[in-house]
Amino acid sequence: MERVKITNCCVRAAASVVGKMERMGPLGGFFDLHDNEDRFGQSTWEKAEAEMQRMALNTALAKVKWQQEQLGAIFAGDLLNQCVGAAYGLKDFSVPYLGLYGACSTAAEGLLLTALLCDRGVFSSAAAVASSHNCTAERQYRSPLEYGAQRTPTAQWTVTGAGAFLVDSDVGEDAPVIRAVMPGLVVEKGVRDAANMGAAMAPAAADTLLRFFKETHTVPTDFDLIVTGDLGYEGGSILCDLMRIAGQDIAPVYNDCGMMIYSRETQDTHAGGSGCGCSAVVLASYLLPKLATGALERVLFLGTGAMMSPQIIQQGEAIPAIAHLLCFVSKESREWKLC
Amino acid sequence: MERVKITNCCVRAAASVVGKMERMGPLGGFFDLHDNEDRFGQSTWEKAEAEMQRMALNTALAKVKWQQEQLGAIFAGDLLNQCVGAAYGLKDFSVPYLGLYGACSTAAEGLLLTALLCDRGVFSSAAAVASSHNCTAERQYRSPLEYGAQRTPTAQWTVTGAGAFLVDSDVGEDAPVIRAVMPGLVVEKGVRDAANMGAAMAPAAADTLLRFFKETHTVPTDFDLIVTGDLGYEGGSILCDLMRIAGQDIAPVYNDCGMMIYSRETQDTHAGGSGCGCSAVVLASYLLPKLATGALERVLFLGTGAMMSPQIIQQGEAIPAIAHLLCFVSKESREWKLC
Repeated sequence: MERVKITNCCVRAAASVVGKMERMGPLGGFFDLHDNEDRFGQSTWEKAEAEMQRMALNTALAKVKWQQEQLGAIFAGDLLNQCVGAAYGLKDFSVPYLGLYGACSTAAEGLLLTALLCDRGVFSSAAAVASSHNCTAERQYRSPLEYGAQRTPTAQWTVTGAGAFLVDSDVGEDAPVIRAVMPGLVVEKGVRDAANMGAAMAPAAADTLLRFFKETHTVPTDFDLIVTGDLGYEGGSILCDLMRIAGQDIAPVYNDCGMMIYSRETQDTHAGGSGCGCSAVVLASYLLPKLATGALERVLFLGTGAMMSPQIIQQGEAIPAIAHLLCFVSKESREWKLC
Repeated sequence: MERVKITNCCVRAAASVVGKMERMGPLGGFFDLHDNEDRFGQSTWEKAEAEMQRMALNTALAKVKWQQEQLGAIFAGDLLNQCVGAAYGLKDFSVPYLGLYGACSTAAEGLLLTALLCDRGVFSSAAAVASSHNCTAERQYRSPLEYGAQRTPTAQWTVTGAGAFLVDSDVGEDAPVIRAVMPGLVVEKGVRDAANMGAAMAPAAADTLLRFFKETHTVPTDFDLIVTGDLGYEGGSILCDLMRIAGQDIAPVYNDCGMMIYSRETQDTHAGGSGCGCSAVVLASYLLPKLATGALERVLFLGTGAMMSPQIIQQGEAIPAIAHLLCFVSKESREWKLC
């Protein structure tokens, strides 16, 4: 069965909201909004994360002077229990809301669904929103920051950030186009170390990528960039190894949002960034603008997610992961035929 | 903007798996599988819930002799933190997986998305799966069962159950057809009592229903049944009041899966059943078969969800809710024009 779905819709606008650490990183100047206290005027970290989602969507709408009424739906999620970042952050929009849980793949999952539904005429436009917050995630998944718990070398740093994307069935002339999408399968290869998400997620990314190459008869060098969401240094290295063993060397065109967002020299995040917000803000503020200018022409973007809970890990289970793929093309490559 | 989406696809098969309490209720004989120990052969409640999802999907596939490869995607979710019931229960299926979080509206959200994507040719068929388990939900949202905490009169009883639905773009001749879907808006009316979900969700159900009637120029008596997912006795009563005030008396055709699943006389569940599994199993094993035989011809089904977390309630926030609508018609009413 064909798993790759060809689409023809664009990302009309995108916006990003980040915290202090992300602002200080190498991509700091590209993000739309930031708060050096990571609080965004709120009294709890959960409310701060919700506020980031609200700000990101409002900023994206403002960039193209859209009213929220133009949106057919909002697809949104985050890492918090019961996805309250999305539910509370977006509750004041009078737009149909569809909640997602794809762990750190949520931005890609949302974009994939908005692209399919806009392409097939269900909505003329729709939004995808995702977020994570370092302080909510650390408390929920590991321990409160105040404990000062030591982190292992393979641990990643949850990004404080939210990204919002407006997907439009009218592709216009310049905007980056979502040329194809491919939802991932759940892949679990026995990794039980909750401090090594990269290792848990890399096999899912390899599975999706290999199926994509096979079905579309493409090779890694057909793309300027193959970028994963948040495998980090550990997972990224494993992915390159897995792909090389399978006969597809992606290393020359490979990068990872979790490796891009922080400086390895000046910001000690161990294995890199992670979280729903990681791929969302890097895509929104760095990759999509490069696609818009033509600096990048063909990009494979894989949102990676590890779908365990702290409780199920305590019960001895391994970590299932997923990777949803999107193929973006710039206006220069719109005529390029995939498949 | 038009929010009601007309679709033409059918529910080819559905299956339900329940616990002892559900089996003993008035609908007990309709459910496909049950376990009187609620454990389904597993060592933890979380794993039991995951196993229910696996069993429900396998049973639905077996009913129509489908192989899993026929499914274009699985849309699934549950109430557990990080939706591990769905992720772990369905990880062995080699089918693209899209995780949802819609609280107790998850079955409706999944059916809505599968219906849209099958209707528009993205998939020829797809599955929606949802579950809840009394023992996981009570521990996670309230307190472990062993504490024996007293429940308030407005509290509902989380259903132990999973439902799976196979949606097919080929409507065939007999199967119930999903004629229209309408995603809900997030509605929050200030209810802060986490032991009164019915009150929190009723305004969302009223909002969706009123918009549906207005846009389709229908009235409650155009339908044999208007059924909500899990408002229970408290929320159902509030919904009828809200609708009457708005000039649409639904009481003569109204029911709620949470009121149907347990006996008020012999099973003390206070305000009725709730949870993702509540509407999923009642729809799968009681309502859809009645649509298949023509005993019901036109049904409005509203999946209702309350999207708070225990943490955000402790932080003083109110409860946002949502209601996604599906309009089912039997073969006798396939020619009936909605809109």
